[in-house]
Amino acid sequence: MRDRDELCINTIRMLAVDTVQKAESGHPGMPMGAATLAYVLWTRHLRHSPQHPSWPDRDRFVLSAGHGSALLYSLLYLTGYDLTLDDLQHFRQWESRTPGHPERGCAPGVEVSTGPLGQGLGNALGLAMAERWLASTFNHPGHEVVDHRTYVLASDGDMMEGISSEVASLAGTLRLGRLIVVYDANLVTLSATTDVTFTENVGRRFEACGWHVQHIDGMDAGAVDAALTSAQGDDRPSLIIARTHLGYGSPKKQDTFAAHGEPLGKDEVRATKHALGWPEDPPFHVPDEALGMFRSARERGARLEADWQQRLNAHRHAEPVAGEAFARALSGGLPPGWTERLPFFTPSDGDMATRDAGGKVLNALAGVVTNLIGGSADLDPSTKTALAGMGDFESPPRATPADDAPNTQGLAGGVWGYAGRNVHFGVREHAMAAAVTGMAIHGGVVPYASTFLTFSDYMRPSIRLAALSKAQVIYVWTHDSLALGEDGPTHQPIEHLASLRAIPGMLLLRPSDATETVEAWRAALQHRDGPVGLVLTRQKLPVIDRDTFASADGLAKGAYVLTKNTPSPRAIVIATGSEVSVALAAHEALAREGISCRVVSMPSWELFEAQPREYRNAVLPPDVRARVSIEAGSPLGWERYVGIDGAVIGVDRFGASAPGPVVMREYGFTVEHVVAAVKRLLT
Amino acid sequence: MRDRDELCINTIRMLAVDTVQKAESGHPGMPMGAATLAYVLWTRHLRHSPQHPSWPDRDRFVLSAGHGSALLYSLLYLTGYDLTLDDLQHFRQWESRTPGHPERGCAPGVEVSTGPLGQGLGNALGLAMAERWLASTFNHPGHEVVDHRTYVLASDGDMMEGISSEVASLAGTLRLGRLIVVYDANLVTLSATTDVTFTENVGRRFEACGWHVQHIDGMDAGAVDAALTSAQGDDRPSLIIARTHLGYGSPKKQDTFAAHGEPLGKDEVRATKHALGWPEDPPFHVPDEALGMFRSARERGARLEADWQQRLNAHRHAEPVAGEAFARALSGGLPPGWTERLPFFTPSDGDMATRDAGGKVLNALAGVVTNLIGGSADLDPSTKTALAGMGDFESPPRATPADDAPNTQGLAGGVWGYAGRNVHFGVREHAMAAAVTGMAIHGGVVPYASTFLTFSDYMRPSIRLAALSKAQVIYVWTHDSLALGEDGPTHQPIEHLASLRAIPGMLLLRPSDATETVEAWRAALQHRDGPVGLVLTRQKLPVIDRDTFASADGLAKGAYVLTKNTPSPRAIVIATGSEVSVALAAHEALAREGISCRVVSMPSWELFEAQPREYRNAVLPPDVRARVSIEAGSPLGWERYVGIDGAVIGVDRFGASAPGPVVMREYGFTVEHVVAAVKRLLT
Repeated sequence: MRDRDELCINTIRMLAVDTVQKAESGHPGMPMGAATLAYVLWTRHLRHSPQHPSWPDRDRFVLSAGHGSALLYSLLYLTGYDLTLDDLQHFRQWESRTPGHPERGCAPGVEVSTGPLGQGLGNALGLAMAERWLASTFNHPGHEVVDHRTYVLASDGDMMEGISSEVASLAGTLRLGRLIVVYDANLVTLSATTDVTFTENVGRRFEACGWHVQHIDGMDAGAVDAALTSAQGDDRPSLIIARTHLGYGSPKKQDTFAAHGEPLGKDEVRATKHALGWPEDPPFHVPDEALGMFRSARERGARLEADWQQRLNAHRHAEPVAGEAFARALSGGLPPGWTERLPFFTPSDGDMATRDAGGKVLNALAGVVTNLIGGSADLDPSTKTALAGMGDFESPPRATPADDAPNTQGLAGGVWGYAGRNVHFGVREHAMAAAVTGMAIHGGVVPYASTFLTFSDYMRPSIRLAALSKAQVIYVWTHDSLALGEDGPTHQPIEHLASLRAIPGMLLLRPSDATETVEAWRAALQHRDGPVGLVLTRQKLPVIDRDTFASADGLAKGAYVLTKNTPSPRAIVIATGSEVSVALAAHEALAREGISCRVVSMPSWELFEAQPREYRNAVLPPDVRARVSIEAGSPLGWERYVGIDGAVIGVDRFGASAPGPVVMREYGFTVEHVVAAVKRLLT
Repeated sequence: MRDRDELCINTIRMLAVDTVQKAESGHPGMPMGAATLAYVLWTRHLRHSPQHPSWPDRDRFVLSAGHGSALLYSLLYLTGYDLTLDDLQHFRQWESRTPGHPERGCAPGVEVSTGPLGQGLGNALGLAMAERWLASTFNHPGHEVVDHRTYVLASDGDMMEGISSEVASLAGTLRLGRLIVVYDANLVTLSATTDVTFTENVGRRFEACGWHVQHIDGMDAGAVDAALTSAQGDDRPSLIIARTHLGYGSPKKQDTFAAHGEPLGKDEVRATKHALGWPEDPPFHVPDEALGMFRSARERGARLEADWQQRLNAHRHAEPVAGEAFARALSGGLPPGWTERLPFFTPSDGDMATRDAGGKVLNALAGVVTNLIGGSADLDPSTKTALAGMGDFESPPRATPADDAPNTQGLAGGVWGYAGRNVHFGVREHAMAAAVTGMAIHGGVVPYASTFLTFSDYMRPSIRLAALSKAQVIYVWTHDSLALGEDGPTHQPIEHLASLRAIPGMLLLRPSDATETVEAWRAALQHRDGPVGLVLTRQKLPVIDRDTFASADGLAKGAYVLTKNTPSPRAIVIATGSEVSVALAAHEALAREGISCRVVSMPSWELFEAQPREYRNAVLPPDVRARVSIEAGSPLGWERYVGIDGAVIGVDRFGASAPGPVVMREYGFTVEHVVAAVKRLLT
């Protein structure tokens, strides 16, 4: 290895070590072991522009092993991003820009939020998918405006998580040659060496999934360089298995799990510096020569970006329609008139499941919002989320000369290959969820992902990170209650509405009929700073007559008074989704008995709670305390609206296998039950 | 194939088809395609006793592809379990014993609840682990009282789920030769053929994990038979990849996804019967010859069981100590005096994290409850869940003549191999959760599983099924709040307490100090009919002085008045876990100002809600409405106890990376904040 390489690599190592030691908290071992990998990748391969970190055609770098955050922050500082030594010195401190695990938004250059293992691999899958879709849709011969790669640095722990196999399998099926995973195989995890728990042959697992796999010495810069070059030349996704040494250089802790998750300690830091020929003082020492070498990334990045800007201008000149669509996609804007084709439903359309209404709305929107892409975890026919006539997102046939051959038909509709808009995620809910986060974060596309509401459980770790990352992803969750019927309790969601509402930053929408479903999709596309869940029924529901009852555009406020004729109600029934029509029937029954009962449709708690107090008090007058909630899910939380003295009609046990109407009746979702509950509160 | 084989196989097929058709709901295609696999396995290999389905040494059968429930019910009826044709005719109906997906407890012979894909594989891993632990612990030379296998029938969908790779990797590492997975490779999923989404080579993936893999024609009974025999003879876990045909025999639907999830339709049922040479009427036709053949399982089973009973008696005679321990383990009982070694904590022990207290309690219990086994997803050093000196659960060295060689040291303490009690699950939270369910359901062991509370998200699909299955599993979740500090928001749980409380049948315990931690473990071991989550802190907490405040045994009632001197309080502060000591400090501060404020420790909502109304009203007097809750998690649900007019001190956004005390202060978990909230309510 050349001296300068070693100097630069040790600069990364020691910066990370000092960062962790100063914080007295963190993970030094991974940066010490993976510094060579990071150095070669970041200085010789990664196409990025430190002074313009949002350059759209940059390569993406994902630190899936998020506990190695000190490595990433060191790289960002060294290569000239807007991150300072002072930031590193405030690692893991209140309001610093260098939190314990990388958080999207904390600092420029942090692409995704990582830490929970395996998630970065899933995000990277989505980043790579978005790149291929944009490339196939917008590139034209001679005008390649989308042309970048996604690199991942992953750990043993990432590889043990099941999501890594879902990602490997789908990326292999899709032949995503732009996805390159460098596996920092230090063979030590938090509590043990991997021989105790992990004797599998990871390389063969990935080969079985159709990946290009290389084994190298990860401490050898030349080998790393050659492997990355080889990976770039292969049309399959690549895994580079790089044998490294956790805590490299630490006399006492190298290759032991003691180097994983706590600072080396002052004495060991000193001993390590001594062993690596590094000045023991001062800490945070950065040799000028090394800094100069790293900082050349700025100039290189500016040049790359200028080249791209030229290509972009030429593309826009040559292909003005595609150019405009590309610019709009990148800006995240919606096309003018995007709401005009939204369907309009009335009772004359007949009873309709909200999943069916959702499918119609989605297809109408997809015709206008041409970068709305997505799919389901093998449930399209049930979730109604297929985009008719818009092709499948898939690897072009191998006969095609190159994967990234431009698709001149991309905007014309007759799509194929990577320009297809229906993504077949397979039975891989977890990878689907992580991938759509990556797609959203990439930019240029608005992704959606669908499965049954119960199976949102499989997606939860990724949903949480989407919320933390403020990524605009749209989940379409159907089969939203007991009413799905015969499939029984394993498929009937109970706790899911409450569980999803508990996630900070999650917007959940459970429309009551086809008309609210239109509004729900409208809200979803307008909600730019976090995930949205659309919760839809399998069973048919009446379309509420909006001449008699309030307009569905009340959904935008989260909750609204449906029954216009109840200015001074004696009681209030609050309902969501399929239970709104039950509440309306109860309202009528009570009216016949002379009891004025207001029905409030509450499709979204989050939107309602964001309204001013006056509005909330107008919908739920504080002095009306005879309140009943009805929702076919866990009662948890409903006391917020009905109080200690109100009545919550919910489900506090698992469901049952039987025809949907039978289950709903047996579990008390009947007009009689609501009427009785209201009367009980009024006596 | 012999005629009688074909007759029997078609009997299974047509019974399943008629069952689904009668219900007008269900999945006929899988049973039709997998009937040969099931027939050969159930009539020639599975060692079971239909008239005594709980015989402890039976082979376990797991239908991981739970949507094929009609196949399982047909087999149970045919081989003579207590399930009738009438039960089959009430498939998927209200209160029937044949729900849409198999539910443990619905009918004898249904070992686990399946349907959500991949879960059965994880349960099976646990079943096979429990078998090896019991065999290595209790078998003695010449007395093999534990000697059975675990068989799984899995689908393409199971193989796509990430958990399948976690299971494959861990089972391979543990070399669980008693685990045999038959993969019904029909290559069709709900929405597509697998070539669209699933081009990986599954066999090579499993080989990479150390499995014995065979490829066979799954429609050929002889090939199935030979493969099962070969699998039984291999000391590695086995995967038999059996090419089958979804909807076999249906002229119009075979090999199409139309055969997957809906009845064939009357005409197609007729056409299928015609094609297979089956009488078109009546439905539910079972030829006597076939029934006789299947029912011979009863006699064979009775014989197998009688043999085992003899071995058991001999074992008990020869090894009375082991015999008694084995009998107690199988009965699920706790040993006499099991609580005697529980530690006793006082303030003089100094501040102590509940994870540390938990580790001490666990180790004390493990010394007495000798079948308490478990581990963590690579976090032992952090979750404090290692059992000191009790060995690791691992495959014995290959030099050993056979995996199942008896371990004569099992009860003596110097354990090795499969008799070790520390399970290293690796970074595989999902498989860990599913496996402990399998272990609990197997019987003979009390399993626990540990990780950080945030990562319970990865476990959720399996937690739900554990609750549905009423399996006694103990989750130890540490690092339970913002107070974990520097690791930041990716690691700080917010929504998790609410999300877990929402799961029906889940018992969640969040003890406030070391003394409540003792009581929490006591409650966990006594809770026999569902999962228990112990929620513990990373940070140190004061040990509450139980001379001044109420005894920690109040935990058993879920909530109790901690402040003895508050019979007529003006306000109530309800707290859980680490926030109890904050509440106590607020109580003192208010007392100094002459305000009587009761502190209620509420470690468990579920236990509290199971108390009689009088008790609940005594703890939370209905006329005291100035109520404040404090818990470092989502506020969701707390209005149940504090009402619309109360104050909820919780966390409604993501956490932050900084030292724990700083984060807690910045998020309002301070004495001043509680005092101010109480005063505000009293004015």
